[in-house]
Amino acid sequence: MQKKSVDVVVVGSIGLDDIETPFESRRRLLGGSVSYACAASAFFTGTGMVGVVGTDFPIEYENLYRSFKIDLAGLQKEEGKTFHWSGVYEADMINRRTLLTELNVFQHFRPELPAAYQNAPFVLLANIAPDLQQHVLSQVKKPKFIMADTMDLWINTARKSLMAVIEKVDMVTLNDSEARLLTGEYNLKLAAKKVLSWGPSYVVIKKGEHGAMLISKKGMFLVPAYPVDKVQDPTGAGDTFAGSFIGWLASGGRVNEATVRQALLYGSVAASFGVEAFSLAGLEKLTRRKIESRMSELKQMMKVG
Amino acid sequence: MQKKSVDVVVVGSIGLDDIETPFESRRRLLGGSVSYACAASAFFTGTGMVGVVGTDFPIEYENLYRSFKIDLAGLQKEEGKTFHWSGVYEADMINRRTLLTELNVFQHFRPELPAAYQNAPFVLLANIAPDLQQHVLSQVKKPKFIMADTMDLWINTARKSLMAVIEKVDMVTLNDSEARLLTGEYNLKLAAKKVLSWGPSYVVIKKGEHGAMLISKKGMFLVPAYPVDKVQDPTGAGDTFAGSFIGWLASGGRVNEATVRQALLYGSVAASFGVEAFSLAGLEKLTRRKIESRMSELKQMMKVG
Repeated sequence: MQKKSVDVVVVGSIGLDDIETPFESRRRLLGGSVSYACAASAFFTGTGMVGVVGTDFPIEYENLYRSFKIDLAGLQKEEGKTFHWSGVYEADMINRRTLLTELNVFQHFRPELPAAYQNAPFVLLANIAPDLQQHVLSQVKKPKFIMADTMDLWINTARKSLMAVIEKVDMVTLNDSEARLLTGEYNLKLAAKKVLSWGPSYVVIKKGEHGAMLISKKGMFLVPAYPVDKVQDPTGAGDTFAGSFIGWLASGGRVNEATVRQALLYGSVAASFGVEAFSLAGLEKLTRRKIESRMSELKQMMKVG
Repeated sequence: MQKKSVDVVVVGSIGLDDIETPFESRRRLLGGSVSYACAASAFFTGTGMVGVVGTDFPIEYENLYRSFKIDLAGLQKEEGKTFHWSGVYEADMINRRTLLTELNVFQHFRPELPAAYQNAPFVLLANIAPDLQQHVLSQVKKPKFIMADTMDLWINTARKSLMAVIEKVDMVTLNDSEARLLTGEYNLKLAAKKVLSWGPSYVVIKKGEHGAMLISKKGMFLVPAYPVDKVQDPTGAGDTFAGSFIGWLASGGRVNEATVRQALLYGSVAASFGVEAFSLAGLEKLTRRKIESRMSELKQMMKVG
């Protein structure tokens, strides 16, 4: 099989997760923002991963990345243990409690882009320290579309650096509580507008099972979540959403209000498959046919009369 | 002005509400499900109110009903005090705590339909005891479309009677927690499907600021909430939604998947105006132009590409 060029570069975390839901417990699952986002993006286009694992990282997981056709030139392996996270979901399968976070090799992660990645037109800065996101930005030579995700930790501890990132990117994604924390606005529409005024062309506020909201200079788009029958593991849903969004967008190459809206629906659909199984299992079985089938179902659910 | 025929009959509660939000407190506001639902329905078509007030009911409020062109032939006045409810909203302006409920004249309410109402094609059974909803159903002669709302109290205390109502109506509306309580299904899609299997052609699950979900034999429709800048008082939003839904539907007369979907958007838009002010103030200033303007905005926010 011909090697795809790297159209999308994703930078973020790789983890081994212990996850407990009211129904089941799993240990040492493959997790982390780049795992989900790359697997989802690579479904649509050539995708390169920038992340770090320890020497304990299972070879099966590396092979799993390869089976998704993720380019691994940017995957660093360091002496020590892989980042480890452990969490418990409540009965609603939405709220969760972190039991343990061991940074391990992730603590000294410094993302370096291989030469082939530096010309990639699409870049997804998944959730890592804003200083590292800035370091990635400094290596990108011909960006066409850069999106950045973040979390409450950085809003609280590295706001200045985060603001510098926000000013430089095309799209920012935040969940509802992060948007409120970052802007001081309770109303999500007003919060998104404030972020938009700081520079990005697109702001997406993620609301989990309630979908997402896009604000751009052209207006607002309400992105519904595809209603699934059963959620088995919501971990990584936001990363799957972001990854398939940027992967689909990059596969077409054109970025405008219409393609961004369409891409967000692909994100919503891919995330719906992702949450139906633990770790990347929901994405492993994905086919273009299944994606398109849910896309047309979802559009039918949005159709007025 | 010519008197409109009564196309929609609404049965439910009338109350004098004390409402406290984190920003403001108001006393003896006009409230109750029929107040909101009739005002919203009468905006679109001839609407008759069936409810009860006490002798303390302010004449201004009766005049306010008239200013909305609500037909008051079914409004009963009984010796005693009007139903009184008092509640406090939390900081999120969604969750609320009931401080006080005084049933007063509502305790012995027996809804009787004036002759002119008995042939009304559209009937909204707002939230009252299922036995009373059944009593209304027994008086309706040529119904074309009947919808019923309910609440957790009746699910817990009058399930059998409620089930008898559900089997007889065309549409049931429930909020998310009520749908879960009624069906024992946590997943809202599965909960709605279960209710659908009991007889109604349409089931609507209301999710407040997150919109609503319609399930019918034809499929699913995701009804977005129109995103408002500022919520002043969410009381009655569900009743405004239901009232404008049935009012718009009745104004066209045709009931099918397409008109029901369109009507639900009118419900969503009317509710967005309703929550922007206390009591019925948000509906008082409504014009067809304002409604249509938000309708086209909302459709724009649902438009893919």
